Amino acid sequence: MSATPELLYLLSGDPVEFAQVVSGLRAPDIAEALGDLSPSAAALVIGALPFDLAVQVLDDPDLEQRVAIINSMALEVAGPLINGMSPDQRAELFRQLSDSEQARILPALERRTQQALEFLLRYPPETAGGIMTTEFLTVPWTATAQETLELIRRVGGGKETVYVIYVLDAEAKLRQVVSLRELVLSEPDCSVTEIGSRRKLLSVGPYMDREEVARLISKYDLLAIPVVDKEQRLLGIVTVDDVIDALITETTEDVQKFGGMEALDEPYMAISIPRMLRKRAGWLAALFIGEMLTATAMGYFEGEIAHAVVLALFVPLIISSGGNSGSQATSLIIRAMALREVRLRDWWRVAIRELPSGLALGAFLGLIGAVRILLWQQLGWYDYGPHYRLVALTVSLALLGVVTFGSLTGSMLPFVLRRLGFDPASASAPFVATLVDVTGLVIYFTVALLILRGTLL
Amino acid sequence: MSATPELLYLLSGDPVEFAQVVSGLRAPDIAEALGDLSPSAAALVIGALPFDLAVQVLDDPDLEQRVAIINSMALEVAGPLINGMSPDQRAELFRQLSDSEQARILPALERRTQQALEFLLRYPPETAGGIMTTEFLTVPWTATAQETLELIRRVGGGKETVYVIYVLDAEAKLRQVVSLRELVLSEPDCSVTEIGSRRKLLSVGPYMDREEVARLISKYDLLAIPVVDKEQRLLGIVTVDDVIDALITETTEDVQKFGGMEALDEPYMAISIPRMLRKRAGWLAALFIGEMLTATAMGYFEGEIAHAVVLALFVPLIISSGGNSGSQATSLIIRAMALREVRLRDWWRVAIRELPSGLALGAFLGLIGAVRILLWQQLGWYDYGPHYRLVALTVSLALLGVVTFGSLTGSMLPFVLRRLGFDPASASAPFVATLVDVTGLVIYFTVALLILRGTLL
Repeated sequence: MSATPELLYLLSGDPVEFAQVVSGLRAPDIAEALGDLSPSAAALVIGALPFDLAVQVLDDPDLEQRVAIINSMALEVAGPLINGMSPDQRAELFRQLSDSEQARILPALERRTQQALEFLLRYPPETAGGIMTTEFLTVPWTATAQETLELIRRVGGGKETVYVIYVLDAEAKLRQVVSLRELVLSEPDCSVTEIGSRRKLLSVGPYMDREEVARLISKYDLLAIPVVDKEQRLLGIVTVDDVIDALITETTEDVQKFGGMEALDEPYMAISIPRMLRKRAGWLAALFIGEMLTATAMGYFEGEIAHAVVLALFVPLIISSGGNSGSQATSLIIRAMALREVRLRDWWRVAIRELPSGLALGAFLGLIGAVRILLWQQLGWYDYGPHYRLVALTVSLALLGVVTFGSLTGSMLPFVLRRLGFDPASASAPFVATLVDVTGLVIYFTVALLILRGTLL
Repeated sequence: MSATPELLYLLSGDPVEFAQVVSGLRAPDIAEALGDLSPSAAALVIGALPFDLAVQVLDDPDLEQRVAIINSMALEVAGPLINGMSPDQRAELFRQLSDSEQARILPALERRTQQALEFLLRYPPETAGGIMTTEFLTVPWTATAQETLELIRRVGGGKETVYVIYVLDAEAKLRQVVSLRELVLSEPDCSVTEIGSRRKLLSVGPYMDREEVARLISKYDLLAIPVVDKEQRLLGIVTVDDVIDALITETTEDVQKFGGMEALDEPYMAISIPRMLRKRAGWLAALFIGEMLTATAMGYFEGEIAHAVVLALFVPLIISSGGNSGSQATSLIIRAMALREVRLRDWWRVAIRELPSGLALGAFLGLIGAVRILLWQQLGWYDYGPHYRLVALTVSLALLGVVTFGSLTGSMLPFVLRRLGFDPASASAPFVATLVDVTGLVIYFTVALLILRGTLL
């Protein structure tokens, strides 16, 4: 798919040939191919493209190093291209520019573009306002189907989507949504207010979380959803392709948080190593400091370990089993919360599922653990001492307790985080493991004290 | 949002009032409300809805217990409703029916419906064929824009999407794709073959993975993509809403796999506990058996632990740090692979990023660890013995080694799994932690032997 050497070769040759080849390519393919070029070379290619295609390439959210490409363009080239970009992508680009870069480029833009930018940049990027576009089609409520279709023919080419048309009332408030499908299917002289269903209008506020917007668009199979202010005035629309991009970004963030770090917000191969380290070191250090409690806990039982070194052998096995069962539970609940299958008030319903689940899984692992110890002893592969049966019992019961505790902790942590106002996706596998490790040690050595007192201890 | 008591109350009362209230609701809201009812009550409500609305409710992929609802309907009710469903959702429903349930319902369906079902059920659910619909609009290449618009007016109401129209050549092969937008914007007597761009046609084969289909639809901002056979004959289309559903399902599976279990394939609150336990117990037992090697490794160093119990204190801290750094690395790489930012051949590029990253993170944690030990000793909070400085050095160097090893293992495991033909998302946090725990112990005790020989050991 890499058309890059070809693009560069053509660029250095016959401009007519270049234009011909390029007109057969789609903007996303050109954007992908430009990823292999230096920003200045990419700027050169974009500058040589037909204007509309160049705008489409800049509009592609997957274009790598968009900021660097813009920065290496002359203002006379960049200005008109940025004026032509779709408002949402333009706002996205500006969010990534530094203050001085913004100051360089802003004067080269049309007054209208500057205003649109200022308006969109008011909203945080993870909200409906942050991903909406201000390019949409409106008609007054007095229009007919025929008049609306004619309007689409006249101005439709420049709008991001013409598949949804917004009907405004006399006070310019959003009254109704009409789809192009409904328009085409209806009689020409039919009033737009009669078209389509009289269902309640679906709209969102500008500060709604983009994940929630995605959920609505997906639930109702919409092509776009209007964003309105408190007075029901239309601010913009969020289209289905923006929602797909938002879903993919959110998933990336969630997976990375679940792995136990801050979200990178940049492609793995593109982010600089120092910046990546900053995103990873914070959580890693926090978890490390939390995990230091295991050294404290182990220190507390140092006497027992000195008496019965055999106990130390099973420490990693037992605490990791708690972490693993906790990781399962937390990933289930984080995902169920993201899909709105489970809400905050459902915590006790989850707890009464995880308690028996944890007990069953713990009993299962406890059984395997006991069999392992007894088998090794009988086969003479290892000598756990004269009280090996009691050691096996200790390990089994500790596993039962630790896995049950792990399942409960892992399932409840996302609820606790959400209740405290944090992102439940921060309940990462390492976070749960750290919580469970310390408690797991206490459970293990307490069980050992109860069972082995008078024999090994 | 719960309209259920209302629905049931209305159902028991005036049918006219019921019809009025219900006509103001959207199908997805009714489907959601039905989730609180028993399947037989839900079947009753659906049976009382206007036919088209009832079909839309059954078509909603988020309708819970769809199979049970269908099973508690009389055949005379279920048959026509299933005939009316969209082909892709109908196929999805049939995949969930048992053989005997299928045998009960199939005879009640129209011959055409049976054929459509048989055709779609040929394809695995995670492929383009498995999520495509066979409802689409085609026109011969000889049609004009006007004729095509008239065709849409005539039959468009029943098709899933009328926003994309497929132009077939004389041999009924797919020749071109025309959007409703382009049709509306063009001259009435313009030939469809002249409309739109002459870009290369985008299509996919029926066995392409649905994630790849989603990636294409997202990359090119499409509303639908055609699925064609080897002779370029149109088999069906995948629409953008199917792709969103597929993306959400894939994400759920990936998050659950990353948590260290099989994907549930059912909502967390809906799956029976025994079935959930089966999905969790397999991986948990496999990880447990893998983790048993830690007991073996610890046994190998039992003599050292007996000599220097202080070494045992830091075992959980050190191995968990390796697991945490591995979890970070593996979540980064799994996600980068899913987004196609990183391919199999890029493994060495990842390795040369993770090696310095791991060294830096390990040095950072090693420093914190050393400070912790020296500080506790100086403040008299714990006595690590006369050789506490050497203990601190041992812990630091072990952390450096374990975190570096963890980062490398975590980042390489997804590559190894993919190379062996497994899903890289199976490289779960617990899986990586297990791999790193065993090696982490060996690294720790080896470092201890090198540094403490002659003093503590």
